[in-house]
Amino acid sequence: MNLQNIKIVMVGTTHPGNIGAAARAMHNMCFSELTLVEPQCPVGEIAYARASGANAILDNRQTCGTLGQAISDCSLVVAASARRRSLSWPELSPLELADKLIGMDDSSRVALVFGREHSGLNNEEIQMCNYMTCIPTNPDFSSLNLASAIQVLCYELFSRRNAKPAGIKQPEPQDLPAVSQEVDGFFEHLQRVLEISRFLDPENPGMIMQRLRRLYLRSELTRNEINILRGMLTALEKQR
Amino acid sequence: MNLQNIKIVMVGTTHPGNIGAAARAMHNMCFSELTLVEPQCPVGEIAYARASGANAILDNRQTCGTLGQAISDCSLVVAASARRRSLSWPELSPLELADKLIGMDDSSRVALVFGREHSGLNNEEIQMCNYMTCIPTNPDFSSLNLASAIQVLCYELFSRRNAKPAGIKQPEPQDLPAVSQEVDGFFEHLQRVLEISRFLDPENPGMIMQRLRRLYLRSELTRNEINILRGMLTALEKQR
Repeated sequence: MNLQNIKIVMVGTTHPGNIGAAARAMHNMCFSELTLVEPQCPVGEIAYARASGANAILDNRQTCGTLGQAISDCSLVVAASARRRSLSWPELSPLELADKLIGMDDSSRVALVFGREHSGLNNEEIQMCNYMTCIPTNPDFSSLNLASAIQVLCYELFSRRNAKPAGIKQPEPQDLPAVSQEVDGFFEHLQRVLEISRFLDPENPGMIMQRLRRLYLRSELTRNEINILRGMLTALEKQR
Repeated sequence: MNLQNIKIVMVGTTHPGNIGAAARAMHNMCFSELTLVEPQCPVGEIAYARASGANAILDNRQTCGTLGQAISDCSLVVAASARRRSLSWPELSPLELADKLIGMDDSSRVALVFGREHSGLNNEEIQMCNYMTCIPTNPDFSSLNLASAIQVLCYELFSRRNAKPAGIKQPEPQDLPAVSQEVDGFFEHLQRVLEISRFLDPENPGMIMQRLRRLYLRSELTRNEINILRGMLTALEKQR
């Protein structure tokens, strides 16, 4: 597991203190890359005070307008979120997440995505992720402080970074994992083909695309597989 | 492991926000008992705001003048601390701590002791504890926020509370662990006897008592053993 290749993505954060505290928590655990998506507050004095010296992380932060941009270069994207009834999405415990990352190629880029202080991530954002991870908590008081959640996950990954791989099956070395941008290209292509074929009604799409996203994201597609799938779609388009 | 019997002890805290954030972190992880030793700030609006609803923990907090009072009913006392050169004290990783607590009798009372924001616990305070536990961190940036350290340890214990005991040897059921007050009584008795016998020079005691504390605290004495040791000391006193 290469902690330098794991970026922490904070979506729509409203309190600068949480951004600073997140930077401190990250630096404590040897993480360095922070990306803010649509931050709702300035990153100034309050954030730097709470960072307690982890200034480089704040200085070098990236800021993006959309979650899609933030994760476009990542081949594994994991949403940190409370469990929810309205959406069933593949879920890893923090320990299972650590096991998965230990087994990954060191050059693969990974994003851990954290939502807003009060409302977390919305369903559309979670559906851009391969997995959800839920920190185990008191069921009667489950909402962790945002920076505390980042602290716990960074701690879990840092403290396990040198553990042995748990024998998770990985793709062959020549078959690299696809990054989020490539997977998105496939989903757009798929949706277009399904709409043209009238399998999907743009006015009334139902849950079909969500179910397909869940299926393919869970599979952690490789580049070769994306190429095969897009080749299929192109052939189906031409056939018409 | 009975989380209700594990108290979180904060020594000399200066920021009320950290006390509130600690209460939130504790409640998130099903801990309930908070003891403040010589707090350096009021527990008011700022603390309650950061507790985010974990008010009961703040309402029911205990406040003590000394660490000795705070831990007097505990049979296992663990200092959360950065590693230090000036003092070698038996050390458990957070995982080893979880394993130890899993193997303990559910009725035994335990204290996890956290020091001041800037200076932590002093050597004398650590020497009142059976063990130190050090959260693994970036060696170049090792100082966690106080509430974050509490969050990490509470998370580690909560998430492992139902794991199987790792086969740590426990005293026989009829041989209950001694509580801190009883162990302290033994240390006072021992020191008195050693001074009377002139083995220990009160003017120039060196490190002898510290080394003896380390030895006996590491052994986690039982009540029967305390009785035997004090019986020995009494016999030695009478012999003179």
